[in-house]
Amino acid sequence: MLYKNLNKNEAAIKMQEVKSDYEKIKELKLNLDISRGKPNKEQLDLSMELLNTPISGFGKDGSDYRNYGLIDGIPEVKELFAKLLGVKESQVFVGGNSSLNLMYDVLSKLYIFGANTNETAWSKLDRVKFLCPSPGYDRHFAITEQFGFEMIPVKMTADGPDMDEVEKLVKDEAVKGIWCVPMYSNPQGITYSDKTVKRFAALKPASSDFRIFWDNAYFLHHLKDEHDSLLNIVEECEKAGSLDMVYEFASTSKVSFPGAGVSVIVSSEENLSYIKKLTGIQTIGYDKLNQLRHAEYFKTPEDVYEHMEKHKKIIYPKFKAIEDSFDNGLYKDGLIDYIKPNGGYFISVDTVFCSAKRVVELMNEAGVKLTPAGSTYPYRKDPNDSNLRIAPTFIDLESINTFCQVFDTAVRLATLERLVQD
Amino acid sequence: MLYKNLNKNEAAIKMQEVKSDYEKIKELKLNLDISRGKPNKEQLDLSMELLNTPISGFGKDGSDYRNYGLIDGIPEVKELFAKLLGVKESQVFVGGNSSLNLMYDVLSKLYIFGANTNETAWSKLDRVKFLCPSPGYDRHFAITEQFGFEMIPVKMTADGPDMDEVEKLVKDEAVKGIWCVPMYSNPQGITYSDKTVKRFAALKPASSDFRIFWDNAYFLHHLKDEHDSLLNIVEECEKAGSLDMVYEFASTSKVSFPGAGVSVIVSSEENLSYIKKLTGIQTIGYDKLNQLRHAEYFKTPEDVYEHMEKHKKIIYPKFKAIEDSFDNGLYKDGLIDYIKPNGGYFISVDTVFCSAKRVVELMNEAGVKLTPAGSTYPYRKDPNDSNLRIAPTFIDLESINTFCQVFDTAVRLATLERLVQD
Repeated sequence: MLYKNLNKNEAAIKMQEVKSDYEKIKELKLNLDISRGKPNKEQLDLSMELLNTPISGFGKDGSDYRNYGLIDGIPEVKELFAKLLGVKESQVFVGGNSSLNLMYDVLSKLYIFGANTNETAWSKLDRVKFLCPSPGYDRHFAITEQFGFEMIPVKMTADGPDMDEVEKLVKDEAVKGIWCVPMYSNPQGITYSDKTVKRFAALKPASSDFRIFWDNAYFLHHLKDEHDSLLNIVEECEKAGSLDMVYEFASTSKVSFPGAGVSVIVSSEENLSYIKKLTGIQTIGYDKLNQLRHAEYFKTPEDVYEHMEKHKKIIYPKFKAIEDSFDNGLYKDGLIDYIKPNGGYFISVDTVFCSAKRVVELMNEAGVKLTPAGSTYPYRKDPNDSNLRIAPTFIDLESINTFCQVFDTAVRLATLERLVQD
Repeated sequence: MLYKNLNKNEAAIKMQEVKSDYEKIKELKLNLDISRGKPNKEQLDLSMELLNTPISGFGKDGSDYRNYGLIDGIPEVKELFAKLLGVKESQVFVGGNSSLNLMYDVLSKLYIFGANTNETAWSKLDRVKFLCPSPGYDRHFAITEQFGFEMIPVKMTADGPDMDEVEKLVKDEAVKGIWCVPMYSNPQGITYSDKTVKRFAALKPASSDFRIFWDNAYFLHHLKDEHDSLLNIVEECEKAGSLDMVYEFASTSKVSFPGAGVSVIVSSEENLSYIKKLTGIQTIGYDKLNQLRHAEYFKTPEDVYEHMEKHKKIIYPKFKAIEDSFDNGLYKDGLIDYIKPNGGYFISVDTVFCSAKRVVELMNEAGVKLTPAGSTYPYRKDPNDSNLRIAPTFIDLESINTFCQVFDTAVRLATLERLVQD
């Protein structure tokens, strides 16, 4: 059933058939949201013990965490993340409930005060450019857009961002940073290859205050027993003497609770000491009792890994159902391309013939909310109008199956509409 | 024992006597910290039930607060603070664990993006001036200093900031804001009079983006049964049509836990909608589970008032002990001036003859850490070198009595040193 071989007449007939299926779906008055990477209720239930186990309020050394102090977090959480990420405790700054907030705040500080005491504040520059591997995370792009930075898309490859392109672009002094989701990237689920990580560590940007925002959001979020592995950027940068160039971020947002987890920055001691000094003016500190709540529940990395197995069991079947549907339908018929991710929260789909915008429109009209087409590109401009981000976690398996049916129909209809027009 | 009547010789003899007392104190090798307004352990223990009572994770309307969403906070906390502060729920934005952080973030947004979509970002202006009623809160001044604003001290009177001065200064277009702690001010414990509040609401600044940062940090923190009352700035501004000019801040930092409480911004719906939009790019939201923890424990304003009575019982005796010591010693002898606060966290002392810096030095050498002299003024420059901030809450009553003894000796010694020199 290769649509591209149909002539206009055949396509029109086929389209009427699919349109009738689509109208039947509309009558179901569905109300599904597959647009955001949110854990579902069953996943949140996994952490109720963490939430409701009484805590002492005190650290191992007797420090009273119920009071002011410790702007860069409690040692227990530093230790846990140092072990999880393979870095030194002195390279960990523990923040609040949102790693996105930490990214924004670090970027704000570079903007208002400069990357360190010797550098010019980015707000004083005529032009700041930021590299945006695309498709990428819409909320990263929203930040750089809000600050008025010029966003430059960089093509994603199976190994991560196109490093030839990155190495060329950082020769421009106005290029001050890059957004990276190095493991199970949002939305494609791509893990940067060892070579890509090494090339990042070895970057020689024209600007001494060029910074890599290494958003390691999904490093714990494997979907399969055989999972990807990511080279440790901190180790690679230490070898290359370039650790000041990197801010790594991670959190427990999708381990415990989105909005009530803990987050960290990992960077050189020099960078952290600078950030700590500036942050000490901004806040009286982050919530140490929530940090302690996490540290008392997750005593070791193994406790975290065990917990993540439970998440995996809940969410993988949803990914699998979508992949099976694609493999037996849209993908087999050559109407979409997609990548089977080994982890993360998304499936990235590229339409082959039809407009991604039109698919979203058809889905919405049928009561299924998809991430707006274009969201995965800077300024929401997908040059091919082909990329769609699917977030399977929030809805239940039965709804996933419904989604698959609607999506199948919507892509077919949009494709046939295009063929009839052309 | 009026020192000022002593001749140089008499003063020198008296000084040797006091110096010998001081040396004996030094031998005790004390280690006391009376420098920061921190609750003590007994106060923190009051909220252990709040901390460790299991919560459901769900709102009254069934919303799952364990997941993403609700950038401006849960309705339960909006309702509580609306009642506590006498404002509408739509005028409340619920933030994270630190009202200082909210102040900083609001100020950052005015700096980076402007006070609203029509105003110029303060970062684009050649000069920004900020009014600083002094003595005032050192951490406010630290923020405006970090942003490079020119800080202009405004004299504090028994009614609050000198409003003649404020009304004159706001005629300068470069003046963009003012810091206020309107109730039980830090450090003097002064509550702004009704007339002062009305004059604030009626201000006609030259700059349309002039903003009042109304840090209502101590509105719940009475020390005595007969307490001060503060006119509602929101109501007054509504009458005057000037609510866009005010950002009010409050928190539970010294109700439940410093660093693990909840904080709010109160302002016009227009201002909050703007802040909400900008904040939606900065973070995925604040910790709604900690918000819920507070809302489930403090169901009504009365629950909060009852809780605050317990704080009062713990801390008032410490204030009383210091006041008694002053009234029977340094104040009676005309060596210090001070104000007996009806609430808040501080006692503000002014030395009459001697250098505040010298007193802090003598105290530190005797093992008692005082807030550095000058801290209560912009740029740490106290024009009279006389103001000292005492924070009685953190140490126990026995230590307070020790403090009183050391302080008495240090002020006498510093005064006699000065008299011998003059």
